[in-house]
Amino acid sequence: MSALAKPVARLIDEFSRLPGIGPKTASRLTFFLLRASKEQVDALAEAVRELKAGIVLCRECFNISETPLCSVCADEQRDRSVICVVEEPLDVLAIERTRDYKGLYHVLHGAISPMDGVGPADLRINELVERLRTKPVREVILATNPNMEGDATAMYLARLIQPLGVTTTRLGRGLPVGGDLEYADEMTLARALEGRRQF
Amino acid sequence: MSALAKPVARLIDEFSRLPGIGPKTASRLTFFLLRASKEQVDALAEAVRELKAGIVLCRECFNISETPLCSVCADEQRDRSVICVVEEPLDVLAIERTRDYKGLYHVLHGAISPMDGVGPADLRINELVERLRTKPVREVILATNPNMEGDATAMYLARLIQPLGVTTTRLGRGLPVGGDLEYADEMTLARALEGRRQF
Repeated sequence: MSALAKPVARLIDEFSRLPGIGPKTASRLTFFLLRASKEQVDALAEAVRELKAGIVLCRECFNISETPLCSVCADEQRDRSVICVVEEPLDVLAIERTRDYKGLYHVLHGAISPMDGVGPADLRINELVERLRTKPVREVILATNPNMEGDATAMYLARLIQPLGVTTTRLGRGLPVGGDLEYADEMTLARALEGRRQF
Repeated sequence: MSALAKPVARLIDEFSRLPGIGPKTASRLTFFLLRASKEQVDALAEAVRELKAGIVLCRECFNISETPLCSVCADEQRDRSVICVVEEPLDVLAIERTRDYKGLYHVLHGAISPMDGVGPADLRINELVERLRTKPVREVILATNPNMEGDATAMYLARLIQPLGVTTTRLGRGLPVGGDLEYADEMTLARALEGRRQF
């Protein structure tokens, strides 16, 4: 487009590569930033640039962290006999927001989905089994998403974990079925935690 | 949130400040970038950082430009006797996409909106009148948005321009009323250009 300055076209392009951002939204965001203060634009650029600097996966639970051991795993107050297994780091945040859970986490980084070519080996499942073998864990809460892939993953994990003599529970179905765990409100999630039942 | 690494929280924050991006979308985008390649993240950061570098407003039409005179105003092939008045630089893009318009532009950078405290003096209206006084312009197409503010602005401009002996037209109402010009598809916009009528 001859009428479009190159730096503008470039940012529209980059925004369009983000999930859920179409070309129209990308244009809107770009033209918003064109009118925004230099401070705001620089703050955004800096935040993007620094995103990955110093971010690692926790060596215990594979949540994102700034330290080799994340703040939850390092917290002496947490109950080390319970591990809540989630698909994504965002799910840890959702559960932390309930302030109802005092155990540890394990982040799988996905769910089993043959359609998308994601098998058990692509997730942090071996690492979970290793934790259960070496640490005194009494309960694993399978808090994968309440949808097909999440349920399949929970089923797979339950079968894998039960021979180890660890109790496996699933979040109570206060959760809207077919949804994403990270969108649940605190109350629903808190009730789902309370109402968890044995697999 | 103790479970949230600082660089992650910071980017979620910055994304949330963009229009139409709530905290959930901001989280999604941030976690997407956490998994994206370093190349993609750096490209986005660079595109944001460089957005304003070298961007100026064209001294003739006030469209965004990389040169003092924008590529449309500098183009010898364009018909200098017609000026299309639009609210925003994005509207220039929308009309250029029709490939039906060969005249020049004038970007107001907004519309008259007493509710938002935007009066004629806040827009590039004096500069438009000056152009009409000093350049041999035969027609001004008032292509402000087909909504209340856009119509009010067009009406105001029409009254201002008619004494100068310049024909003023408004885009034909093939446009959906109440909408935004930049969302119109090429065909609708092309038809609206054809069907323009005297004010």
